[in-house]
Amino acid sequence: MRKQNGESVLGRVVRIFEAFTPEESALTVSELSRRTGLHVATASRLVAELVSYGFLARDTDRRVRIGMRMWELATRASPSLSLRNAAMPFMEDVHDVVGHHVQLGVLDGDEVLFLERLTAPGAVVNYTRVAGRLPLHATSSGLVLLAHGPADLRGRVLGGPLQRYTPDTPATAARLRAVLAEVRRQGYVYCPGYVHPDALGVAAPVRDARGEVVAALAVIVPNKAGASSVVPVVRTAARSVSRALGAPDAPGRRREPGDPRDGRATAV
Amino acid sequence: MRKQNGESVLGRVVRIFEAFTPEESALTVSELSRRTGLHVATASRLVAELVSYGFLARDTDRRVRIGMRMWELATRASPSLSLRNAAMPFMEDVHDVVGHHVQLGVLDGDEVLFLERLTAPGAVVNYTRVAGRLPLHATSSGLVLLAHGPADLRGRVLGGPLQRYTPDTPATAARLRAVLAEVRRQGYVYCPGYVHPDALGVAAPVRDARGEVVAALAVIVPNKAGASSVVPVVRTAARSVSRALGAPDAPGRRREPGDPRDGRATAV
Repeated sequence: MRKQNGESVLGRVVRIFEAFTPEESALTVSELSRRTGLHVATASRLVAELVSYGFLARDTDRRVRIGMRMWELATRASPSLSLRNAAMPFMEDVHDVVGHHVQLGVLDGDEVLFLERLTAPGAVVNYTRVAGRLPLHATSSGLVLLAHGPADLRGRVLGGPLQRYTPDTPATAARLRAVLAEVRRQGYVYCPGYVHPDALGVAAPVRDARGEVVAALAVIVPNKAGASSVVPVVRTAARSVSRALGAPDAPGRRREPGDPRDGRATAV
Repeated sequence: MRKQNGESVLGRVVRIFEAFTPEESALTVSELSRRTGLHVATASRLVAELVSYGFLARDTDRRVRIGMRMWELATRASPSLSLRNAAMPFMEDVHDVVGHHVQLGVLDGDEVLFLERLTAPGAVVNYTRVAGRLPLHATSSGLVLLAHGPADLRGRVLGGPLQRYTPDTPATAARLRAVLAEVRRQGYVYCPGYVHPDALGVAAPVRDARGEVVAALAVIVPNKAGASSVVPVVRTAARSVSRALGAPDAPGRRREPGDPRDGRATAV
């Protein structure tokens, strides 16, 4: 299965998939060859095989795209789909009331990956998109996931470079540590202008049947006075989604002594 | 790249992905081996490699699932995402007004593949799900896509067996041909009890910038008197989505002589 240069067929296929981006969702075989570093003949052969399985599709102009079959297989049995389906009705309710952006993010690697985003015409600036990623320390969803994530992840992020997007981004370890402690104490995060001066994010944790934080529900609204009214809406909706997932109870209300969440909540 | 039995690595990987379903989204390696017909050692090696790329993920109990990275790569550059994003605000509006189910389907192979579904608690019975498939001849979305699809597809479906789900399913070639002609004439389809006696579907075509039908927007409501008020809602929303996709004009209003759509509309 391994080739002479040590890379497997699958490794090459993954490089082909990674070459497609939201901005460049259709590529010719020679563009694919350039981006992946694969010989044109190799790229061409792999593309033909992937097209035969519906994992890639050829346009009328011979450019290649991600195929519908790949999306279907990746989506229909994805653990993210059941989470997203449980969250959607509540996200729609929040969106009806608050407008702007309502989004659902999960931890993947050292970033937040967005499973869903509802938006409105004329909504405030927002860098999130479905299947897009953003850093943990600057985004409201990321801060919730980081606050409740594994201690080694927190250590890694706190020890690494923290990009400053605006003067308000928590871009020092001391400030970030304080923000994370506040998230765990309050049960939500309030982020005025952390990513963009005009935008304010509010996020709260979503828990599964084991009481683990599995996602963050966030609202992005204009960064101006009065956004504090969004906080109870987001917190309520995040609890509703958690209940739909079978979460045992609202955290902090009936927490048992020795609950493992207490240990996690004080780590780092 | 081909193995002794003639199947490529990719062919085996596709069989592994296909083994996961919404009902069985987590499988052990031996279950995967049984379902795919691959040797346990082969399945185990491929699973390990797919896990290393994040295309599969291992649960704490050693069962395997579709990985988040696969979903991300399949989604972020998918042509279906831009269609779905364009449709979502209008689908939400329809859902606010009508309730029950609002869904977006595309033609893939000889079936309708659903890209999105908004639903409500207590909504009427509906077999649709996101990334799920249903036959063309029985569903409102499918009938719209079939009416505007390629002539050879129509010939194939009209010539093949037509499953009867209820006494009202258009399950003869003559009846189906009449329904399809009606869809093209009216610009929508009205399907009382075609899939389930309790459910009624209404669907209308969504067109892209070239004026081609690329999707069907449908509403599923209870099958009882008064559902005809849903028709203008669905037609209007489908036109709004088409406009958001840059569709040239509302079909039938300013159709030029010699428009290729006229030819397609009368085929079969």
